[in-house]
Amino acid sequence: MCAYCAGMNSRSNGASSSIRERILETALDEFYECGFHGATMRNIANAAGCSAANVYNHFENKSELLVEILRRASDEQFTATRNALRKVGDDPAERWRAAVAAHALYTARNPRACLVANSELRYLGPLDRKRVVGSRDAQEQLFVDIAEGGVEQGLFTIERVHQGVTAVLTMCAGIPLWFRESGPLSAQEVADDFAGYALNLVGYSR
Amino acid sequence: MCAYCAGMNSRSNGASSSIRERILETALDEFYECGFHGATMRNIANAAGCSAANVYNHFENKSELLVEILRRASDEQFTATRNALRKVGDDPAERWRAAVAAHALYTARNPRACLVANSELRYLGPLDRKRVVGSRDAQEQLFVDIAEGGVEQGLFTIERVHQGVTAVLTMCAGIPLWFRESGPLSAQEVADDFAGYALNLVGYSR
Repeated sequence: MCAYCAGMNSRSNGASSSIRERILETALDEFYECGFHGATMRNIANAAGCSAANVYNHFENKSELLVEILRRASDEQFTATRNALRKVGDDPAERWRAAVAAHALYTARNPRACLVANSELRYLGPLDRKRVVGSRDAQEQLFVDIAEGGVEQGLFTIERVHQGVTAVLTMCAGIPLWFRESGPLSAQEVADDFAGYALNLVGYSR
Repeated sequence: MCAYCAGMNSRSNGASSSIRERILETALDEFYECGFHGATMRNIANAAGCSAANVYNHFENKSELLVEILRRASDEQFTATRNALRKVGDDPAERWRAAVAAHALYTARNPRACLVANSELRYLGPLDRKRVVGSRDAQEQLFVDIAEGGVEQGLFTIERVHQGVTAVLTMCAGIPLWFRESGPLSAQEVADDFAGYALNLVGYSR
């Protein structure tokens, strides 16, 4: 741990984990500003107040950092969606609405991580990509299960469920491209609107 | 013009414009593979079979190349959409379906340009960004006009038209993230499906 970091975290018992967190935060900024290829471990270290060597103590290389950022964002988003689903009953329409709203809300509130996840994923090698994509696939499956339930009960009329889910998830993934917290609508309002769009999209008949 | 390029285009009257085209093609590959910050004029030149100096004869810098690629993609997509609209009548639902299908079809058939347009736009400076965004805004306005017509005639029930259009356009922009020409559905089938999703999304009641 560099002296600066140690000083910053002198009151914390988990100083090492705090440094790790700060590195992840500055790495996300760096990936967002410069892209994966433009990002440097030195800049990430500087912004975190560490030496590059210190960053390498925590992360093997840039890919390792990007994987960790993308996996975390994906896991957090997944958790937010599952938590929202715990509060609703068995009705597929209500579950669909709740899942999409929670997913969209996370995206609107974590725009940098979600944007980096979409634009920088293609730079990861096959193995690293697999580690990130596994978590995404699980998330997608959750939406597919709900939508298939809706189709089975005759509430949704969409023909290709998997494609429809992908359309909804990419529509949500696009929120950071235009949504601003300072705009006329709150993140929650946008999330609720998107849940409505998603219900329409699958042909839900009220 | 480098000797290699001159040789490649010896039978063409528009040799200089051919080189320019080839540079734009290799630059798109380079931006896709390495991102804007990772891309180098030297790699772009090598892939085009030119010297870096030759690339600089045609484009001032990397930004100039990216702007030209993004503007062209945006203009071509816009033209494709307007051409499709010429073949349909005045019914807002038919116009909405035709516009979205054409827009989605262009995206499915030009995945690299569309993906680069979304992920690399943020690296352009304010002025260069403005040049690209102007063309996009015009495109967006076309969709807004159609959707507003649908709402006025009571065919569409969407409340925030502009946001709905953005949702539809980002849903289409996501196609390159998952669609493969070698997959079970053709680009045209995906485009038609997406037009159906977009009609549902705006609450079109048949």
